Amino acid sequence: MHILVTNDDGITAPGLLALAQALRSLGQVTVLAPDHNWSASGHVKTLHRPLRVKEIRLADDSVGYASDGAPSDCVALAMLGLFPERVDLVVSGINPNINIGHDVTYSGTVTAAMEAAISGVPGLAFSINSPENQTDSLDYGPAARIAFKITQMVIENHFSPASLLNVNIPYLKDDEIKGIKLTRQGLRIYRDQLVRRLDPRNRPYYWIGGDSPTGVAEDGTDYGAVAEGYVSITPLQLDLTDYHTLTKLNTITWKL
Amino acid sequence: MHILVTNDDGITAPGLLALAQALRSLGQVTVLAPDHNWSASGHVKTLHRPLRVKEIRLADDSVGYASDGAPSDCVALAMLGLFPERVDLVVSGINPNINIGHDVTYSGTVTAAMEAAISGVPGLAFSINSPENQTDSLDYGPAARIAFKITQMVIENHFSPASLLNVNIPYLKDDEIKGIKLTRQGLRIYRDQLVRRLDPRNRPYYWIGGDSPTGVAEDGTDYGAVAEGYVSITPLQLDLTDYHTLTKLNTITWKL
Repeated sequence: MHILVTNDDGITAPGLLALAQALRSLGQVTVLAPDHNWSASGHVKTLHRPLRVKEIRLADDSVGYASDGAPSDCVALAMLGLFPERVDLVVSGINPNINIGHDVTYSGTVTAAMEAAISGVPGLAFSINSPENQTDSLDYGPAARIAFKITQMVIENHFSPASLLNVNIPYLKDDEIKGIKLTRQGLRIYRDQLVRRLDPRNRPYYWIGGDSPTGVAEDGTDYGAVAEGYVSITPLQLDLTDYHTLTKLNTITWKL
Repeated sequence: MHILVTNDDGITAPGLLALAQALRSLGQVTVLAPDHNWSASGHVKTLHRPLRVKEIRLADDSVGYASDGAPSDCVALAMLGLFPERVDLVVSGINPNINIGHDVTYSGTVTAAMEAAISGVPGLAFSINSPENQTDSLDYGPAARIAFKITQMVIENHFSPASLLNVNIPYLKDDEIKGIKLTRQGLRIYRDQLVRRLDPRNRPYYWIGGDSPTGVAEDGTDYGAVAEGYVSITPLQLDLTDYHTLTKLNTITWKL
């Protein structure tokens, strides 16, 4: 079992190392991650410029690889044969912030797993619900142990590569986590605000600011499970067709 | 009706101007597009740096706005109140290449419409199936006329903002286009290959190369319709939950 570990926070992120270390007993682990932070970068395929890959030493002195591409580029490079051994599974994370609801299409953590699914291997994305503004000194221990167990179950159950698993973990101690819930994608409530400022030369610039998004803690959803203290596993698919609306649109006469 | 027109090829793209001109009779059209090409950029939310917006003149001497953000940032800026008038509808395109199958999550054209749906207004994405390597001298006339008609129908039918419409148009003359088909998202076949080269200092670099992707021309799908000469309209949703797999996963005992 050859496991590719990547993330969107970059090669030096502590969540990446915690994840790689946790998975080593499950097979050969190769770390290939972006050389800088790509948060909220979405699903990228870099075709207009070549990509570099550099061998580096991770903080535990193991070998890893850094690329100047996006998280999904790292997965594509590995799937297209950058390494001699075929990749069997892609695991992305551990992201310090949850990726729920509409966040998933923005998320480099999730789109890396999506790229795996497109390439025909299972993809898993792990994120934790860390307290706001505390992402610097997080304890990734409990989440790494959970990532190990879930990855092990995915391997043992011969999980189909047709969809990916988006896993969100509450930021709690091991014995405080209540268990696992299989969930659907819930709703995100964004509280973005446009902040207009003037630069020293009196020209305007704009920040997408405002408060952090919240979620609707509905029963059965990703956010609902995490808010209750459960690990949320949401299977995501690549088919975005809205079949319900498709049926409704068929009642209209569409003429050119 | 205040219509925001954007794209992922950048403010100078002829497909953008053709779309803006075609929609002017339907309401007030504001053009806000990236100042450079963002193709295959995915769904981006730029939070780590401020964004600039510059008033410019389009090729027909009308006023437009260029931003250094991604297509989805352009939509976010407008939805958050960059312009005094509230935006009622977002139309993105006209992209010179089709956005079908798995392409939709990579596509700046589609993710701009996705950002509209997240913000609560209808979003439409228009792309044409141009012949390979001929994107420089395309005739956007037929596609622009179709974009006008479909946008008009969306306005007249009070289309729900909960999902977005991904429209793909065959690159044919007006009288060669057979009509409209409502479709589901089909399958893309990627033919990417890793191309390894050495730079003048003998260090490797990598291109994601290979042939252009093809599609499975299955009946009822986006690619199937375009291949037959029909305009394809696929409603896309923001809920990516794979409900089928969710049911299957519930038969496994997930234990921490």
